[in-house]
Amino acid sequence: MKIGLIGLGKMGYNLALNMIDKGHQVVAYNRTSEKTKEVEKYGIIGAYSLEELVSKLSKPRIIWLMVPAGKVVDQFINDLVLLLKTGDLIIDGGNSNFNDSIRRAKELKDKGIEFLDIGTSGGVHGARYGACMMIGGNKEAFEKIEPLIKDICVPNGYLYTGPSGSGHYVKMIHNGIEYGMLQAISEGFEILEKSEFDFDYEAIARVWSNGSVIRGWLMELLVEAFKKDPHLESIKGVINSSGEGLWTVQEALRLGVPANVIASSLFTRYRSHQYDTFSGKVIAALRNEFGGHDVVKK
Amino acid sequence: MKIGLIGLGKMGYNLALNMIDKGHQVVAYNRTSEKTKEVEKYGIIGAYSLEELVSKLSKPRIIWLMVPAGKVVDQFINDLVLLLKTGDLIIDGGNSNFNDSIRRAKELKDKGIEFLDIGTSGGVHGARYGACMMIGGNKEAFEKIEPLIKDICVPNGYLYTGPSGSGHYVKMIHNGIEYGMLQAISEGFEILEKSEFDFDYEAIARVWSNGSVIRGWLMELLVEAFKKDPHLESIKGVINSSGEGLWTVQEALRLGVPANVIASSLFTRYRSHQYDTFSGKVIAALRNEFGGHDVVKK
Repeated sequence: MKIGLIGLGKMGYNLALNMIDKGHQVVAYNRTSEKTKEVEKYGIIGAYSLEELVSKLSKPRIIWLMVPAGKVVDQFINDLVLLLKTGDLIIDGGNSNFNDSIRRAKELKDKGIEFLDIGTSGGVHGARYGACMMIGGNKEAFEKIEPLIKDICVPNGYLYTGPSGSGHYVKMIHNGIEYGMLQAISEGFEILEKSEFDFDYEAIARVWSNGSVIRGWLMELLVEAFKKDPHLESIKGVINSSGEGLWTVQEALRLGVPANVIASSLFTRYRSHQYDTFSGKVIAALRNEFGGHDVVKK
Repeated sequence: MKIGLIGLGKMGYNLALNMIDKGHQVVAYNRTSEKTKEVEKYGIIGAYSLEELVSKLSKPRIIWLMVPAGKVVDQFINDLVLLLKTGDLIIDGGNSNFNDSIRRAKELKDKGIEFLDIGTSGGVHGARYGACMMIGGNKEAFEKIEPLIKDICVPNGYLYTGPSGSGHYVKMIHNGIEYGMLQAISEGFEILEKSEFDFDYEAIARVWSNGSVIRGWLMELLVEAFKKDPHLESIKGVINSSGEGLWTVQEALRLGVPANVIASSLFTRYRSHQYDTFSGKVIAALRNEFGGHDVVKK
């Protein structure tokens, strides 16, 4: 299959290599040209404008977006619409909000262009050697690209999830669950760290990776992290969030689901960015008012 | 190796079969004799009293307890102490509180009897075909039984964790993490269930089991659960807890660790046993008092 790929960031870059490994042809465009030049070495066809990208594909064209969620996706779609024809297909493989994907699918359908929203999991390693994909949108459009999807995913690692938006919806929930799992793991290790025992965290993560109930990829990755830095002394406990956790909690609120753990995990990330908190000051001030309890002055 | 095993519940029964599969000899005792009779069919040597159990072992004896945590463990140890001699070894492979294990190790040491606390993970399947074990206590005692441990665990599936209590400590934290992971997974699926999409949960759990960031044994087990009952209509969402989650939170409190997610997961289990809550009544009553908001009457 011949695919136009837009975005050679960590995920797009590795997905492109994965695709050509499996015998597909990839025409790649990136906003800065260095990455495009770089991937040409691997047999990927470089394109230095969207016009060039589209001209190097044959109809019906398949264009895979692997760019940051939000306005960037809309901008590329708006630009592509001017170049594409009825029957062409745009895939958004990034971490877009499912509401945006529902809107984009509708807008593109009105213009005769197909759209699939694909949630991609498995990290950079998965993008390169076998990903996990959740695909929403028109089923016939999905079936057209299924051979490609099958090639770039691990066995049983892709699912057609239903109408437009559902692929990104399932990916959003996946990431929400990931927030909670990460937080649970982190709390457990913080207790180990504070305890009077002198534990080897790498060894514990390794034994838990082998035969335990909580075994899984995250625990295996933790073995690698502790191998590099046994007490994680080189990094700060500041945790960014890119949107899916927030959206999961927004969905929980919309639907009335008590997602305590996922919400708490998200709030812990917010807290991790605050050197001091206003809520902390409020409680300290009130305890001082009613009980004369000491406050820590700046 | 020849091992005396006390307790033929789900874990002990399968561990005994695992041991004899690997060429070890097992003398088994259970409080009710039916299970003992049953395992004799598999080549396990039945014992119908502790005296018989001890008499069928040669010195130094190894006795493995696989019984419910708490008083039952103390009772068996008290009874065994009368029958054992200096140099004999008692192993507690159950889910005991680590503080109890520290105390028992000390009490037994004073009597010249060795003690190891082993946290066992991997569920019933793991007990039968390859477990994950965390072993605390005297290192020399551990090394004596290491060949047995190696045989009944999966590769790299056991770890000597340090002094007495550390095996059960690490297992406690493992279970605390498990509480949080289960809760995160459950919240994600409840959002999927409440959403307007018509999702196939078995298929989602399966795709997440293959190549995703959150892949692991729990997700694989969920595939099986949804395969049996696609909407889990046959069961109630009531969740028991056997102690380790509580102890993890108690440790978090003792050590000052903000284990929000593990604590919240435990509280969710408590809530699941309440058809109605007093805290709910208090809030409803207060909202009625200050705002005239309707209350639901019995």
